[in-house]
Amino acid sequence: MKIVVVGATGTMGKYLADAFEKEHEIIRVGSSCGDIQADITSLDSIENLFRQVGSFDALISTAGPSYVGPWKSMTDKEFRKGVEGKLMGQVNLVLVGQRYINPKGSFTLIAGALTTDPQRNFANAAAANGAIEAFVRAAAIELENGIRINAVSPTVIEDSPQYFPYFPGEVPVSMKALEYGFRKSVFGPSTGQVISPR
Amino acid sequence: MKIVVVGATGTMGKYLADAFEKEHEIIRVGSSCGDIQADITSLDSIENLFRQVGSFDALISTAGPSYVGPWKSMTDKEFRKGVEGKLMGQVNLVLVGQRYINPKGSFTLIAGALTTDPQRNFANAAAANGAIEAFVRAAAIELENGIRINAVSPTVIEDSPQYFPYFPGEVPVSMKALEYGFRKSVFGPSTGQVISPR
Repeated sequence: MKIVVVGATGTMGKYLADAFEKEHEIIRVGSSCGDIQADITSLDSIENLFRQVGSFDALISTAGPSYVGPWKSMTDKEFRKGVEGKLMGQVNLVLVGQRYINPKGSFTLIAGALTTDPQRNFANAAAANGAIEAFVRAAAIELENGIRINAVSPTVIEDSPQYFPYFPGEVPVSMKALEYGFRKSVFGPSTGQVISPR
Repeated sequence: MKIVVVGATGTMGKYLADAFEKEHEIIRVGSSCGDIQADITSLDSIENLFRQVGSFDALISTAGPSYVGPWKSMTDKEFRKGVEGKLMGQVNLVLVGQRYINPKGSFTLIAGALTTDPQRNFANAAAANGAIEAFVRAAAIELENGIRINAVSPTVIEDSPQYFPYFPGEVPVSMKALEYGFRKSVFGPSTGQVISPR
């Protein structure tokens, strides 16, 4: 299977690309390194990405830039970081990528437990996650040719200890559990689902 | 109580403004008519709106422009209608409005049942709704001075029969039930809640 991993140089994306490359052809996409560079906040860059990728079987996105910071410092400008990044960036990966994906292919986007379980400083990510989760449910009923779409929605992950202080009382998700969440989406039958790895 | 109704010339907003004006001071805000005109897709227009309103006790938003149309016609451009309108428009009403709202005031935004119960043609509204619902949960834990925030999330409403064909099997929400949903948010104690009128 030819799998495109967008965000492949981040903590999640690198782990998943390494895990899946034993069995599959992996195209690593990063903002400044990887097999192909792309800026998901730019529609032109996304169009250019898929022209280079050509046809593919699955796209995994772990690319979710958003604003982390105190509510009091939040203005339209900060809020747009997540809107242009985690939200529109991922939506455009689907809207453009659907023209290149093979029949029965799949899109798996990254959301997060903040959707329903908010923490201080993360209102921007929460909103982007909520949008992505609703988007995959809605897109699943309109995508054709057996193409599936799901989101994986973890809480803080094991390999990002710098975020632990922001998530008091949350049991970090192991990288293995995260991988299983993505495996379920990419290789399983489900569509329109929000998969919460535990 | 001084209540600002944004979207006051639409079906929901007009009903709510008429219902609440028997007991409260209502400022009707519309895009082209009303007591004050504002374009919620423009940050300058929102800033200007609140300068005219001054201090207030509650803001109700029923202003949710989004793109309705077949998935196949959806590109970045169409998707931005809901992102700039129902999502960023309402987020900016809160981010700016919090500087003007009185202590113990409330914001009530409009979301919709499409968040969890999608229909064809409505992926854009679904994503905006999901974002708004997650946003109110996150904002509620950071707003200070007893300021509350909730969303009302109806399915198709009784007074918009033109949308009935798009919502097969959905029992339309009566305008009275919708009003009660907003009453619960504005006059009740809850915050960070998504209220689903039935």
